[in-house]
Amino acid sequence: MRAGPYERHRELLSSVGRAIAAGESRRPFTEATCRDAADAGMRSARTGGKVFRSLLGRPFELGQPGELGRVRTESSPYGLALAIDYPRCDPAELVAAAGSAAAGWRAAGPYERAGLAVEILRRLNTRSHELALAVHHTTGQSLQGALRAAGPRAQDRALEVVAQAFAESERVPADLRWMSAERGGQPLEGSCSLVPRGVSLLVGCPDFPLWNGYPGLFASLVTGNPVVVAPHPRSVLPLAITVRVARQVLAEAGHSPDLVTLAVAEPERQVHRRLATDPSVRIVDYTGTARFADWLEQHAHQATVFANRTGLNTVVVDSTDDYRGLVRGLARASCRCSGTVRTTPQNILVPERGFSTDEGHKTLRDLGADLGDAVDRLLAHPARAARELGAISADEVRDALTDAARYGPVLHASGPVDRPDLPYADLRSPLLVRLRACDERVYTHEWPGLVSFLVGTDSTSHSLALLRRTVGRHGALYASVHSTDPLVLAAAGTAALDAGVHLVENLDDLPADPSSALAELPDSGAHFVTGRFRVVRSRRHATPVTPVPAPAPVRLEIAADLVDV
Amino acid sequence: MRAGPYERHRELLSSVGRAIAAGESRRPFTEATCRDAADAGMRSARTGGKVFRSLLGRPFELGQPGELGRVRTESSPYGLALAIDYPRCDPAELVAAAGSAAAGWRAAGPYERAGLAVEILRRLNTRSHELALAVHHTTGQSLQGALRAAGPRAQDRALEVVAQAFAESERVPADLRWMSAERGGQPLEGSCSLVPRGVSLLVGCPDFPLWNGYPGLFASLVTGNPVVVAPHPRSVLPLAITVRVARQVLAEAGHSPDLVTLAVAEPERQVHRRLATDPSVRIVDYTGTARFADWLEQHAHQATVFANRTGLNTVVVDSTDDYRGLVRGLARASCRCSGTVRTTPQNILVPERGFSTDEGHKTLRDLGADLGDAVDRLLAHPARAARELGAISADEVRDALTDAARYGPVLHASGPVDRPDLPYADLRSPLLVRLRACDERVYTHEWPGLVSFLVGTDSTSHSLALLRRTVGRHGALYASVHSTDPLVLAAAGTAALDAGVHLVENLDDLPADPSSALAELPDSGAHFVTGRFRVVRSRRHATPVTPVPAPAPVRLEIAADLVDV
Repeated sequence: MRAGPYERHRELLSSVGRAIAAGESRRPFTEATCRDAADAGMRSARTGGKVFRSLLGRPFELGQPGELGRVRTESSPYGLALAIDYPRCDPAELVAAAGSAAAGWRAAGPYERAGLAVEILRRLNTRSHELALAVHHTTGQSLQGALRAAGPRAQDRALEVVAQAFAESERVPADLRWMSAERGGQPLEGSCSLVPRGVSLLVGCPDFPLWNGYPGLFASLVTGNPVVVAPHPRSVLPLAITVRVARQVLAEAGHSPDLVTLAVAEPERQVHRRLATDPSVRIVDYTGTARFADWLEQHAHQATVFANRTGLNTVVVDSTDDYRGLVRGLARASCRCSGTVRTTPQNILVPERGFSTDEGHKTLRDLGADLGDAVDRLLAHPARAARELGAISADEVRDALTDAARYGPVLHASGPVDRPDLPYADLRSPLLVRLRACDERVYTHEWPGLVSFLVGTDSTSHSLALLRRTVGRHGALYASVHSTDPLVLAAAGTAALDAGVHLVENLDDLPADPSSALAELPDSGAHFVTGRFRVVRSRRHATPVTPVPAPAPVRLEIAADLVDV
Repeated sequence: MRAGPYERHRELLSSVGRAIAAGESRRPFTEATCRDAADAGMRSARTGGKVFRSLLGRPFELGQPGELGRVRTESSPYGLALAIDYPRCDPAELVAAAGSAAAGWRAAGPYERAGLAVEILRRLNTRSHELALAVHHTTGQSLQGALRAAGPRAQDRALEVVAQAFAESERVPADLRWMSAERGGQPLEGSCSLVPRGVSLLVGCPDFPLWNGYPGLFASLVTGNPVVVAPHPRSVLPLAITVRVARQVLAEAGHSPDLVTLAVAEPERQVHRRLATDPSVRIVDYTGTARFADWLEQHAHQATVFANRTGLNTVVVDSTDDYRGLVRGLARASCRCSGTVRTTPQNILVPERGFSTDEGHKTLRDLGADLGDAVDRLLAHPARAARELGAISADEVRDALTDAARYGPVLHASGPVDRPDLPYADLRSPLLVRLRACDERVYTHEWPGLVSFLVGTDSTSHSLALLRRTVGRHGALYASVHSTDPLVLAAAGTAALDAGVHLVENLDDLPADPSSALAELPDSGAHFVTGRFRVVRSRRHATPVTPVPAPAPVRLEIAADLVDV
């Protein structure tokens, strides 16, 4: 007898689940890649490249219902002719097909669902290079960055969500037993069932389509909700491949492939807004700017919205015993954001009068100059530059680079970066602008792309007050603090809790960015999983009723006196 | 040394938590009441009566900030002069005071918070009779019903929520340990903190202010959110007493009493709507009609809304081996709803051509006649009538009784019920109207009060299809099925899952109603608790960094060929 999908992946699921509960992390996909012999990696890279090439210039077939025509919305910022036509399907038909498939998927139960989710991830894992090339050529991310954001690390992130969703489902007690409170305390029994909310919508991220898309996709699937995946028009291919793999796995296991569908259309058709307000769509996942997150919360009333606001990622500099590391880390981060969804820091808050370091007192001006130099050094090194810098794929980023330079002294100007091997790519160095604390109007705006602000404050207390207020109001993926003073670290911890934001302390690397060493844990809170289902109970007599003496009735004799007070 | 609140209640909390995880139920407050000697019960009833009387005709003091004046909105449907003046406080000031108290409450941690929540419940327990009289005289519920809905059973329901919220908080791993994925796999450490969402608003229920109010109030408090309690103007006193007790317990423990405040105002001031859309209010709890639940979801964008829609509680009759029990249970339930928030069934779906019973085949006409007789018998028995029937406290209910009678043949007319001991109370017998399945427009409307419809359907399959559609669309607190056929029970189970509703099988008693023996478990899903907080992480180096050999880099060599495909 062939083992079911759950049996095949049981060990993996439970070990990841145990690690999460213990506050640890397991990364089986990443670890397997590291163990691979170099020639195996080379082989799978070659295969991935071949498969990727075979997708170009062709219709991408999914076999979905409601196909109305074909649509092509992507172009490679590296000048590669993608020319892939996706099916444009009627969004209402996709939602209806998902709805029809829902009852069977609910009935499959959490074991089967989690097992199939792992199976999907396992297959995606074998296509990591193909997915990375798809991300590279649609988002403009560097190849290295794309492999991190689309490969084993993204799969491990998804696997943690699968394990968490499975663990939460398993925690619902299957059987209920209790005694009715009165009428002789009859024994009752019942059962608990997990009821998925309904059709789930994943609004794709233009810059990190898989990294930011997998958590919601897999959380919904494992908790029993079909998912309509609506990629950003600039980056369809990575999610299209993912959807095709998911549909194959589901169909092979005898489930309806329409549990996972792709909704893509010309931008003017506003397919995201149409889907997000469809009465049958009950869950929406989105990572990106606060603007669209606000729109979702104001218009998608019928749905639970899981919006991860990129917001104002902020670094507070108070003091450091590794000045070079600090400068290097910030320089690297400032090069990394070539897209519109910002995972790198935007606001670097530094006391105007400077701060102490292992290399003596440094002023804000020193930091600005050193940061500019570090950026230039990094970009002068072809291999390192190639690793960090992506190609710009949106006019919005170009405009921001021009616009932001007008608000303050430019510490590092953004200019073209030539790479003879990438003649078609628009590569630019980051812009670094100095602002004053009173320029809040400028730095509380969410800027896309390679724009960072060095904001002078009165003191670290002032910096922390700004962090609390600006991040508390506009959100952020994380905050970061550099200090050698335990009191400052404690105050920063409190400020981060007040603002409700993740904090990293004295780490050069920054989370949220898939290229960071810290970015393993998917975004947090059991709510991310438990908000996708309800628990419904059924109850009945446990056994034929045998009368039992009733407890003494509760006395309320005083009451009669009172009525006519 | 005096034990902290957590230490004092640790045993209780963990035993209740274990019971929930195992699918069982513990009811320590109810059990203690049952064990009480009759004279102890009598004594506490007398004390409760005295304290209740001492509240009448006086200003109710709470010592809250922002007091603008005094307000009186209640009147007893039993003719008792309540004449209690509550402070009318500026809602914005209450929210601001709650916000200021929030950081201290967050810092208190889940142990302290859960301990104090149990302490509040323990004190409320000693005032069960006072609270029951407050519910009786504001909602019109019978004394017996009020004691169930306001006394030990309501406290046990709250205690389950406290234990659940505490267990969910405890499950957040305090310490994180992991290795960064690259750059030599540095050991990292971190911590997880529970970040409460913010100020919580409880919108009071006019008919079951404590039963429906406690779950949200205590879930928010234990997860660290301050609560503004905004009672329905018709029933302020039960929640006002609760708020005063909570404030006392909090202040005695050195916390700000403004963590729990009462917001009451004349209805025309729309204090609920103002509070629900206040930008600082981040959680709203509400149990009641779908109409206001929809309003909340459409307007309180800034908040997570926990709306429990009373909707269309529905009974499907297919067959029974206890016809008398069935008729008696329905007769009792139809007498129980004298208010506007409906916990009793509205729609009873029965095949037109009848159904089989232990007393032979019964037509829908038989059931209607027997149900009418059973109601008359019940109301002819003074003590039983007094137990079930409440006084009508809203014109809305009177209008419904007149209005509903026009839609179909009246199987039991609603008429006045005289009770010489309650000369001022408007007591009426229930209205029972026969409808056809095609009268969907009538029975999908949510009717208040003593209105039940006997809806004739083509078959049980038809009944289940109606259940699926109407309850799926309009919600319900529960559905109920009577059948001796396991296949029908299985089909009903699936229909209930499709509609996302709790189901009781072959039980005369109906849940949701505090007067029911089934109504122990608070409304379900971990989401009710986990949706009230986020988890925020901090991360740092675990130990001074010692370089470790980096794993082999992942190969992507194929890529270079591809760029110039």
